[in-house]
Amino acid sequence: MSETMDDRKKRASEWFRSLQRQLCGAFERLEARGGDLYADAAAGRFVETPWKRGGADDDQGGGVMAMLHGRVFEKAGVHFSEVHGEFSEEFRHQIPGASEDPRFWACGVSLIAHPLNPHAPAAHMNTRMIVTTENWFGGGGDLNPMHPAYRTRAHDDTEAFHSAMRAACDAHSPHYYEEYAAWCDRYFHLPHRNEPRGVGGIFYDRLNTGDWEKDFEFTQDVGRAFLGIYPALVEKRMDQQWSDEDREKQLIQRGRYAEYNLLYDRGTTFGLKTGGNVESILSSLPPLARWP
Amino acid sequence: MSETMDDRKKRASEWFRSLQRQLCGAFERLEARGGDLYADAAAGRFVETPWKRGGADDDQGGGVMAMLHGRVFEKAGVHFSEVHGEFSEEFRHQIPGASEDPRFWACGVSLIAHPLNPHAPAAHMNTRMIVTTENWFGGGGDLNPMHPAYRTRAHDDTEAFHSAMRAACDAHSPHYYEEYAAWCDRYFHLPHRNEPRGVGGIFYDRLNTGDWEKDFEFTQDVGRAFLGIYPALVEKRMDQQWSDEDREKQLIQRGRYAEYNLLYDRGTTFGLKTGGNVESILSSLPPLARWP
Repeated sequence: MSETMDDRKKRASEWFRSLQRQLCGAFERLEARGGDLYADAAAGRFVETPWKRGGADDDQGGGVMAMLHGRVFEKAGVHFSEVHGEFSEEFRHQIPGASEDPRFWACGVSLIAHPLNPHAPAAHMNTRMIVTTENWFGGGGDLNPMHPAYRTRAHDDTEAFHSAMRAACDAHSPHYYEEYAAWCDRYFHLPHRNEPRGVGGIFYDRLNTGDWEKDFEFTQDVGRAFLGIYPALVEKRMDQQWSDEDREKQLIQRGRYAEYNLLYDRGTTFGLKTGGNVESILSSLPPLARWP
Repeated sequence: MSETMDDRKKRASEWFRSLQRQLCGAFERLEARGGDLYADAAAGRFVETPWKRGGADDDQGGGVMAMLHGRVFEKAGVHFSEVHGEFSEEFRHQIPGASEDPRFWACGVSLIAHPLNPHAPAAHMNTRMIVTTENWFGGGGDLNPMHPAYRTRAHDDTEAFHSAMRAACDAHSPHYYEEYAAWCDRYFHLPHRNEPRGVGGIFYDRLNTGDWEKDFEFTQDVGRAFLGIYPALVEKRMDQQWSDEDREKQLIQRGRYAEYNLLYDRGTTFGLKTGGNVESILSSLPPLARWP
């Protein structure tokens, strides 16, 4: 059993690292493509920064942070991490299977993208596998248009993003999409403003149907679906002219995005409290934001 | 006793509202003064927005939010509030004197200023009186230079600000300054980055020496000290030329300021959870911030 789990960890880790590379590649192709609106700036490339958790003689894994500061993507981060260690006393009772034994292994990829063009949506994606005395997958992707005109469920872009997520879900269970789309709406919500963060997508956690292969395949499909749809949406919008007023609206919506991540996002607050990589965790924050 | 307390509430409330007006007046004088660097823009004026807590037939007090979007002050808020009600089950065990009886009255003034010029420091000030079955004062002021060159304890501006706060303290107790300056340093600290928010000042809470008149006088002196020193520091720096690089540094430091307020500031998180005025609470967030 332990040998099987080691093999599964290895396969999941290889997939997440591969997905990171594919996502970076897709973004770099849009950077290279450019266009009239971007002619004054050079195409951006991702810069990979490896980091380690724990000290020199205390291997707790680490990750590879990949950041892009480009012309199409004002800022994008696509991060891979594979870490292990022990949950602190504070956390072990909040994590399934960690009360008995605080050791954990966690591996995943997380992405956040802030295009320069206010017409192009920002987005977030994360998929991960966690092992304590139990093991499960979690993740999802959600679309965050920064321009008010795009922030409706009925908009073409929203529709296209949800369709892609639905397809990934429907291939595995007729219940996933409905359940995970609702979870996404509940999760990415700003209670103090009673506003959604974006236009939704899917969110799932603690997925363990008893069939690891099947759950792993679903998690891969979520990554593939995001890879298929999000760069395509950016490409569709990146050549659209924008005004100063459009830019202002984008900056204000980005302020809301920062509020959400710092006030509520469990990945952020959990990461900061468990000694995660601060630069990597806070790389989700927008390159420029306005609070008028 | 209850009659005395009503009288004290009234006197405190009148002082806080008066301090709000004096602070707004001092900022508007700098706006009117302007100078070569500000000649292209019009002098800003505060806009007062009254707000009410509770519903139409459920008087729970309210406040006056005063916002300035000017040329010297890119954004400044000086807010007065006088509210009453009952603490929720969640909070009453965290507040002195509220376990027995959840009713409270709270009144105060809070200020946050973000000058346009990166050489001019941002600042925060808040003084308040709280009444449950107990009563106390709290508050303080701290300086937040946004340009790295100014972010040392030894800098002239830091020194001048601390001297003013020290003078207010020393007039009332030889222990206040040391104790409250240390409290300020502990409180305005970003643990995830192991960085201070600014260069300190003073912070105090739950002050009740048994002599209400004396404590009220101290709280007034803190307000007066801030009024005396902060606009003077802005005036000293407002005509200094700045470069794009200076502005970038300012915007990045403002990002740290936003992190602090959303992740740690008790006034912010407490306010949002107790149904405070969202616009007023979040008006502390910087007008423009960068996360590179």
